[in-house]
Amino acid sequence: MTFMEKLKKAARANNSLVCVGLDPDLKKLPECLKNEKYPIFAFNKAIVDATKDYVCCYKPQAAYYAGQSADDELKMTIDYIHENYPEIPVILDVKRGDIGSTADMYAKEAFCRYNADAVTVNPYMGFDTLKPFLDYADKGVIILCRTSNPNSGDLQNLVCDGKMIYEHVALYARDKWNYNGNIALVIGATYPEELQHIRQLCPEMTFLVPGVGAQGGDVEKVVRYGCDAEGLGMAINSSRGIIYASNGEDFAAASGNAAKELRDLINSFRG
Amino acid sequence: MTFMEKLKKAARANNSLVCVGLDPDLKKLPECLKNEKYPIFAFNKAIVDATKDYVCCYKPQAAYYAGQSADDELKMTIDYIHENYPEIPVILDVKRGDIGSTADMYAKEAFCRYNADAVTVNPYMGFDTLKPFLDYADKGVIILCRTSNPNSGDLQNLVCDGKMIYEHVALYARDKWNYNGNIALVIGATYPEELQHIRQLCPEMTFLVPGVGAQGGDVEKVVRYGCDAEGLGMAINSSRGIIYASNGEDFAAASGNAAKELRDLINSFRG
Repeated sequence: MTFMEKLKKAARANNSLVCVGLDPDLKKLPECLKNEKYPIFAFNKAIVDATKDYVCCYKPQAAYYAGQSADDELKMTIDYIHENYPEIPVILDVKRGDIGSTADMYAKEAFCRYNADAVTVNPYMGFDTLKPFLDYADKGVIILCRTSNPNSGDLQNLVCDGKMIYEHVALYARDKWNYNGNIALVIGATYPEELQHIRQLCPEMTFLVPGVGAQGGDVEKVVRYGCDAEGLGMAINSSRGIIYASNGEDFAAASGNAAKELRDLINSFRG
Repeated sequence: MTFMEKLKKAARANNSLVCVGLDPDLKKLPECLKNEKYPIFAFNKAIVDATKDYVCCYKPQAAYYAGQSADDELKMTIDYIHENYPEIPVILDVKRGDIGSTADMYAKEAFCRYNADAVTVNPYMGFDTLKPFLDYADKGVIILCRTSNPNSGDLQNLVCDGKMIYEHVALYARDKWNYNGNIALVIGATYPEELQHIRQLCPEMTFLVPGVGAQGGDVEKVVRYGCDAEGLGMAINSSRGIIYASNGEDFAAASGNAAKELRDLINSFRG
């Protein structure tokens, strides 16, 4: 099954567009985990067990593992999800972008070393730097388009031939790069009008939408503007709002409740 | 000492603008290393020992370590260079770019976990994603501007307000982002006219120039167009042309010769 099929199937099975971002910061983990041999893995495992019925996918952010020398716990986390909840896809959020021979190695990292179902990539260097990922036809390749951060417009909103750079990226993805049908786009929830515009440009494409929760994106607008004709087409990511819902011994149950609440809030606008 | 000072000092001491890219592919290592416990580290160590008098810096490409589960050998390599040749700076080539809290973690990865002197970053997401790196004032932050690969123009050559996107990046770097004076730019050797143009825009900035050797960049044009007023201002990277100069037991000596030859070729045009 391809990533796109797996994502849609999980979204239907759990009636959910929620993506839980697994971004564990050792400084923020509950006290009760601090004596674990693998505290990050223990944290992720508990979060996954508690949220698995309310999500369409998980998204570990590689930086939290790379910055805390926890590569093995990233691998353990992804393996755990595949072994226990094989119907839920895992997106490795790494935002890679490099020349061909190097991109080959990054694709191996994401799809062979970590066995992720999909990966995020950066389009700044152009098509040949994306192709080594796109060639894995069953895997998802999620290209940064309009990101959720404050200065994302520095480059993304520059206008060329009447279109902003992020629109050029969306059109490349729609018309030129999607030869395996495995591209999705990152569109930040903090720019709902631009999300709406890209949905009009790309009615059938899947979007990964970060920026609700801690970053302040408006869930109602995201859902109304971003869903495709089937009421699907998005994985709406929340990290801190779910994984840090409580800092006590009830952290896992609290994350489950937070994921369920976000799912239900999203569904209340899906109509 | 800052990265910029260290780079200039090493370039003067070795009279060299050569950066050796440490991109070890297990499939391409000499047979004589295949029984080593840490073949990648053994390879890098031998290359470094053989080339250290002919370089201004080293640049391990993170993908080769991430894709081959060799994070520990990356750390061993950088530690080895710092311990034995502390005057030679190390650039960790990772091309990171992510939102603030995540970029903090990537900056920790580069500067704390691996103790690199400089890091490469991707500007697509804008200033706030670069700031966590730029705040390390003594470290170098090398921003992708005009990259060496075939389709780098897909986005980088789009024209906005009479300037291509890569020129906007150079001007942001020169006029807005360089509050700590620690920015350098990546400009591919395969586009020498654009290198010349950016040198005119940014007469005092340091450039990391990949693309000579295997990628076919013209060394004479790179040197004539890219040096600053002091005949410095560039680290010209070669990876495959140096580290795979021989596949036999003489691989280290051959890499030393290749590095010396490239240094001398570059110097013949420095005037």
